[in-house]
Amino acid sequence: MSFRLRTLSALRSSLPRYTTIPSCTRYSSTFGYTQAKALVYSQYGPPSDVLKLHSHSISPAYGDEVTIRFLASPINPADINQIEGVYPTRPPLTTALGTTEPSAVPGNEALVEVQSVGANVKNFKKGDRALMRHSAFGTWRTHASATEKNLTKIDDSKFSKITDIQAATVSVNPCTAYRMLKDFVKLEKGDWFIQNGANSGVGRAAIQLARIWGLKSVNIVRSRPNLDELKEDLTSLGADLIVTEEELGRELKSKVKELTGGKGIRLALNCVGGRATTDMIRQLADEAHVVTYGGMARQPVIVPASQYIFKDLHTHGFWVSRWSDQNPEGKREMLEDIFNMMLKGEFKEVPVEKNIWTPETKEKELKEAVDRSVKGFGGKKQVFVFEGTE
Amino acid sequence: MSFRLRTLSALRSSLPRYTTIPSCTRYSSTFGYTQAKALVYSQYGPPSDVLKLHSHSISPAYGDEVTIRFLASPINPADINQIEGVYPTRPPLTTALGTTEPSAVPGNEALVEVQSVGANVKNFKKGDRALMRHSAFGTWRTHASATEKNLTKIDDSKFSKITDIQAATVSVNPCTAYRMLKDFVKLEKGDWFIQNGANSGVGRAAIQLARIWGLKSVNIVRSRPNLDELKEDLTSLGADLIVTEEELGRELKSKVKELTGGKGIRLALNCVGGRATTDMIRQLADEAHVVTYGGMARQPVIVPASQYIFKDLHTHGFWVSRWSDQNPEGKREMLEDIFNMMLKGEFKEVPVEKNIWTPETKEKELKEAVDRSVKGFGGKKQVFVFEGTE
Repeated sequence: MSFRLRTLSALRSSLPRYTTIPSCTRYSSTFGYTQAKALVYSQYGPPSDVLKLHSHSISPAYGDEVTIRFLASPINPADINQIEGVYPTRPPLTTALGTTEPSAVPGNEALVEVQSVGANVKNFKKGDRALMRHSAFGTWRTHASATEKNLTKIDDSKFSKITDIQAATVSVNPCTAYRMLKDFVKLEKGDWFIQNGANSGVGRAAIQLARIWGLKSVNIVRSRPNLDELKEDLTSLGADLIVTEEELGRELKSKVKELTGGKGIRLALNCVGGRATTDMIRQLADEAHVVTYGGMARQPVIVPASQYIFKDLHTHGFWVSRWSDQNPEGKREMLEDIFNMMLKGEFKEVPVEKNIWTPETKEKELKEAVDRSVKGFGGKKQVFVFEGTE
Repeated sequence: MSFRLRTLSALRSSLPRYTTIPSCTRYSSTFGYTQAKALVYSQYGPPSDVLKLHSHSISPAYGDEVTIRFLASPINPADINQIEGVYPTRPPLTTALGTTEPSAVPGNEALVEVQSVGANVKNFKKGDRALMRHSAFGTWRTHASATEKNLTKIDDSKFSKITDIQAATVSVNPCTAYRMLKDFVKLEKGDWFIQNGANSGVGRAAIQLARIWGLKSVNIVRSRPNLDELKEDLTSLGADLIVTEEELGRELKSKVKELTGGKGIRLALNCVGGRATTDMIRQLADEAHVVTYGGMARQPVIVPASQYIFKDLHTHGFWVSRWSDQNPEGKREMLEDIFNMMLKGEFKEVPVEKNIWTPETKEKELKEAVDRSVKGFGGKKQVFVFEGTE
């Protein structure tokens, strides 16, 4: 061939449309084309309304291209917001995959395996595993054409003890917790921090990193029927103190003062907002920092002026996508560090529900998985796990 | 005398009470005692309810003591909050001045003149002028006994062009504006900041410092009948753009983007709170800092989580008392710098209403001055100016 096609889409748009590729088609054709499936959306809205399953073909890897197969891809809250159109970054809607309407593939985080490489690819070979280097690549699909720049290679040796799901979910939650504990207040061994949403993916990562680094955590959760079970669960990860939002009062403040030997708490991690966050902030010592990384209550952060002026409070935000884009080398070192913790068995994965995605999986099943994520079903993270797509 | 008395109060408490000292008493007695008057409060509450005028005597300066005469002392919002008991620092209530109930003298800022010095005093002589080095000394009084540590000497040469009122009001408002413009965002010449309460003492100082340093300001004021007059006034100080709270919308944001050559605004000074502050924050560029130094609207600072996370917003507080206590040398340099601006005629004093305080002034008149301050009477700062107390 004297011309290069990134996908079959260019051909498709100029040729009569093929009939739907039957699901029993061989995954790699005799000419090296890969039969791929992707969830796509062409307009913003509730995921169950706007997501469609789209089939397309990927031409053989050429030049500096890499064909990748997805191994595992989580459904994160940010992915949902992106589909809803309320997230600040969005992949562009294009017809690159041969969709009739301009579309995008959702999903920001994944573990992938290299299936084939073009002649100019230097650092990847078939079988290598990698993470997406940047957000907004579109990870809810079986295969994709990528370049080396899209990927962060993970050394094979890591996978002796790290599961695919641990690797696939490391870039957002553990990295967010890691940076928030490192970059805003210089905490020494024995120092305390406080966080709400303590049973979230970031919350669980923060508890475990704290345990590994010798920090202590006050963990705020919402009151719920299975509270004792949840407390046991978080305690097993290393949570030092677990309280409900209702318990954020003077009594706790006295207790914290005692526990911290009078030093108090100078770092708070916030993913809630509204009154519960204001109550958490009142627990802090002078010169404290609050880092907001989410807004689950869909309410703003509300801080009395006196907390800023007289208690010298500082409030910030943290967005792992921006940090990662601005600190590629730091990101690499952090991943290495977290993977080493995982290799030592020091870091448990978040509770997940696996949603197996094979070439035969129907659109309806995939959308149900996304719906479960929206509804926070059972407190488990929904993850697509790909099978039969080799 | 072989014993030392800081005031006559110790004598008073052990001797039968004197009858009220007649107002025609000579101010310094033949034995060197100074007849002093002070506003005092013995319980927290509305100033008009709790303030009393108290007369007492100050013994001659002895050892490392300095007797000071107050020249001018402003009534700042923090002074009012202190009397109300809602300010984090409060002078202790004592009977040191011979009051029947433990009392404190309100007022935090003043220009004073040294009247006499003890034998061990090295750096002060009669006639020297000084500012209070720390807050909470108690400045609403005619005279006091102090030590060198209480005072920051101001070189006589400054007073060739600087008025007593300029000197007496430099420590809180201009110093607050100075630090907020210097310490949170590195602004280059031509860079913009935004502030609300632009016609306050701090706001006016910020406008003038900006003009002197080559910065540009967007100034938010509340809509009012004499808006044009106020705009003219602030423009004459150097305000580049003046808008009302109602004008904080998309249109202004576009205008600001244009004015700043696309850079936007990365520093906001806030003394209001509530919705007006949230609206101001929405005007900011990415990676901006908001510094809160007041809460005039008596509402908290309310910030959507997305502003923190996706726009990398940072919010802080500034309290000049804490800064000054932590940075005595920096404070000295800053005062020198501001006084030099004033000497060059670059810095106008805030609009003030002088309240003359003589040995004959009645309690009622002094309390009325405080009331005018509480009511924000005519937008002028109320200042006690002492006469006939030499």
